[in-house]
Amino acid sequence: MAAVLGKVVIMGLGLMGGSLARSLKQTGFCDHITGHGHRDVSLKKGVSLGIIDSYSLDIDEALAGADMVVIATPVLRAIEAVAEVLPKVSRSTIVTDVASVKGSLLQAGIAACAGQVPPNLVLGHPIAGSHNSGVDASDADLYRNHRVILTPLPETDTEALAVVRQMWLSTGANVAEMNVAEHDAVLAATSHLPHMLAYALVDALASSAITDDIFAFAAGGFRDFSRIASSDPTMWRDIALSNRDSLLEAIDMYTANLAQLRESIASADSDALHDTFSRSKAVRDAFVAGSADS
Amino acid sequence: MAAVLGKVVIMGLGLMGGSLARSLKQTGFCDHITGHGHRDVSLKKGVSLGIIDSYSLDIDEALAGADMVVIATPVLRAIEAVAEVLPKVSRSTIVTDVASVKGSLLQAGIAACAGQVPPNLVLGHPIAGSHNSGVDASDADLYRNHRVILTPLPETDTEALAVVRQMWLSTGANVAEMNVAEHDAVLAATSHLPHMLAYALVDALASSAITDDIFAFAAGGFRDFSRIASSDPTMWRDIALSNRDSLLEAIDMYTANLAQLRESIASADSDALHDTFSRSKAVRDAFVAGSADS
Repeated sequence: MAAVLGKVVIMGLGLMGGSLARSLKQTGFCDHITGHGHRDVSLKKGVSLGIIDSYSLDIDEALAGADMVVIATPVLRAIEAVAEVLPKVSRSTIVTDVASVKGSLLQAGIAACAGQVPPNLVLGHPIAGSHNSGVDASDADLYRNHRVILTPLPETDTEALAVVRQMWLSTGANVAEMNVAEHDAVLAATSHLPHMLAYALVDALASSAITDDIFAFAAGGFRDFSRIASSDPTMWRDIALSNRDSLLEAIDMYTANLAQLRESIASADSDALHDTFSRSKAVRDAFVAGSADS
Repeated sequence: MAAVLGKVVIMGLGLMGGSLARSLKQTGFCDHITGHGHRDVSLKKGVSLGIIDSYSLDIDEALAGADMVVIATPVLRAIEAVAEVLPKVSRSTIVTDVASVKGSLLQAGIAACAGQVPPNLVLGHPIAGSHNSGVDASDADLYRNHRVILTPLPETDTEALAVVRQMWLSTGANVAEMNVAEHDAVLAATSHLPHMLAYALVDALASSAITDDIFAFAAGGFRDFSRIASSDPTMWRDIALSNRDSLLEAIDMYTANLAQLRESIASADSDALHDTFSRSKAVRDAFVAGSADS
């Protein structure tokens, strides 16, 4: 393809940023990719692997002449980076990100722009990942056939939005749009909540007085159910903190549902239990049928 | 091996009973296996496949001359079967089962024996299964390297216990012993509770007002976490009802833990969140390292 952009800056060359850089290089979406970060290990490796063209530890040097800045750091750092970058770039420089939380980033962006929504800020969230992390695990095909949610506002520049959309399409992703609050609620419910539930389960079992060896008797269902409790604690602490309100709502919704199920069990309401389990199975089976295997 | 027993009766020739029959046939643990059930489809198939030697729809005919009766029906039927079989057999006939709940079966057995613990009742629970069900899915190796929990009482005949243990060892299983209450508490916590949590999550999301299309944005973590919500609703209704007290305790323990986690999020207690997630990850990683892969 003919290059759509000149210079793209990727802040944070880990799994997400590295994978995006690889893909943009492969398709020639832009002429030049500059990496920026606080440590030079990943960035040096990025250059030697040909994932990025150059790097700078100095933010001003990195941003000079940038057509687009992609913030691909962990989420708490991304909130800081939005506030740091926006005042340094012109309105013709697109600022976007890959964080799994959008409201906190938007608030940081508005606060950094004297209370106005910055039209050049196009928040995005590719729903993709890997058990591995770091630039070594990066993969040009990480985003292929995955969804990217963009959360434009009425104030968002339509051209900037179109370019970000085009970038994600070039990686093979499918692009959807949602408003910021809906994004954070949907992700709280479908991703952040399940992680909290899995952590809470393992923690509850580990502190249970039943038996020292309780996990010795856990079966395959437990293994699947608890897999996400092996996720990175720092990343999930940061997500919990930066999507707090939506996550609390999701926990409350869940707690109410579980209390109802408890009541059905306590009152031996056979029909209610069968209805709930059948309904859930049907929904879950439909989810699986509509997405990848099993 | 030389046959340990003469005639074994298997009540319920589904996945569990069929797999046990196949294994006992293969090793020659007994001379003769008779199937019993309410419908003859599986039983006829069992004979034609050589899994069992004969069958009878008549319980008295089936039990005649039995050295051991293995109740391998769904759990609510198993509770009835314990009460039905014990008065029909002599104390030299071992009665055992494969249900994932033990307290309800023991109570049924005691009630059927004028308030006395029947010494020939050896309750057992092989922790094995499959996504498939029925005799067609049965597999002589289903129990290999899986755990079987036996829950003998002081009144249990030691010879009967030794034979049941020997039977499970002959299938390649590992045999552990626990008391009935501990079994039901451990299974409630590690298996029944996770199923309830997964059903409740899918149900909560399905009835959420957030978006009609909420599942479209669910990622891989959700797929793993919710897999057990695709389990058989009838089976899980019956387990919930027959292990009610232990399950309610497990739900309460979990709800308290989740409430504490909610409080840490609400108060933005970064250290508490990181501690909880780190502890859970360590426990879960150790669980995985100590069992099968991932």
